[in-house]
Amino acid sequence: MEQFLPSKLLSNAVDQFAKLPGVGRKTALRLVLDLLKRDENTVNAFANSIIELKKNICTCQICGNLSDDKICSICSDNKRDQSTICIVENIRDIIAIEQTSTYKGSYHVLGGLISPIDGVGPSELNIQTLIERVNSQNINEIIFALSTNMEGDTTCFYLSRLLKDKNIKISQIARGVAFGGDLEYTDELTLARSIESRTEYSS
Amino acid sequence: MEQFLPSKLLSNAVDQFAKLPGVGRKTALRLVLDLLKRDENTVNAFANSIIELKKNICTCQICGNLSDDKICSICSDNKRDQSTICIVENIRDIIAIEQTSTYKGSYHVLGGLISPIDGVGPSELNIQTLIERVNSQNINEIIFALSTNMEGDTTCFYLSRLLKDKNIKISQIARGVAFGGDLEYTDELTLARSIESRTEYSS
Repeated sequence: MEQFLPSKLLSNAVDQFAKLPGVGRKTALRLVLDLLKRDENTVNAFANSIIELKKNICTCQICGNLSDDKICSICSDNKRDQSTICIVENIRDIIAIEQTSTYKGSYHVLGGLISPIDGVGPSELNIQTLIERVNSQNINEIIFALSTNMEGDTTCFYLSRLLKDKNIKISQIARGVAFGGDLEYTDELTLARSIESRTEYSS
Repeated sequence: MEQFLPSKLLSNAVDQFAKLPGVGRKTALRLVLDLLKRDENTVNAFANSIIELKKNICTCQICGNLSDDKICSICSDNKRDQSTICIVENIRDIIAIEQTSTYKGSYHVLGGLISPIDGVGPSELNIQTLIERVNSQNINEIIFALSTNMEGDTTCFYLSRLLKDKNIKISQIARGVAFGGDLEYTDELTLARSIESRTEYSS
């Protein structure tokens, strides 16, 4: 249903906000009216933050992470283990892993997964730079932290074949019942796989 | 918990989005990363829509509605009944009523409700302009479409006293069980009031 709005300026701003993912026209209107209540400097700071971001953001030349500079803060950090690379699909995955504060290696962002159905082949992904990293740097371990779906499995398989002869340890993150997760609420596939791939008990 | 973000530019944009109502830092990140995927022109159009809105939006000098010009599209519309004024709290209420396409009169936006607890008195509201309208124009009816809480009731009472001697019909929108609403799921107060203020049955 067409939404009545008393102003073209308002209508235009609502249109723009309604293009954001998960934001409908009612929510868009609420956000825009909230912004409108603030003073002009605050509104300009909001708008400029996104203009500046788009204009000046870089992609790290080593790992493909978002960065203010040519090399991201993780790749330029000497305290991190640059000989371990965790392969992720996108930068949201980096943020999720960094949130845990347990991983101290580096990353490599593929920018997607191999998906013949969607027409995404290896050449569309950030794989060439990974091979260059592996060839030029001293890499000990590569960890696959990709989704466990068809695309994720295909990508892991493809990469493992590429890296086979490089004498690098290849691992993948553990899958199973979540910590604190109730067995009865765990989906059947996860539960079945977690029994198959059980590990030795250590107290 | 502090959110790790690989870039100050990104972090700044996420901070700005997280100030929007109902948007947490995770949602803010999702919105910002979505914007970042688009081309620069689209991002600038998004940002400029809100800058232009804040810079150029007017408040209608007659009714207080948001408008591109000094007089809003409703107040300047000759086809609408300018002798009927519907009193609302804010412009979202205008949008909701306009959505129904049933009301053909004009509006008056108070910009809030009388609330002694929050320090909002009649002088903080857009009431003086209402009195001027009533004195200078030929007004037949005033409709109260305010919330049914303490503040709404106080405001209705205050306005009805102000308008008492002006020889204007004063009405309020109907309250009761929603159309299509199940009796068993209607709150007790609404149900009790809807029985007390029952109307004659007409088929």
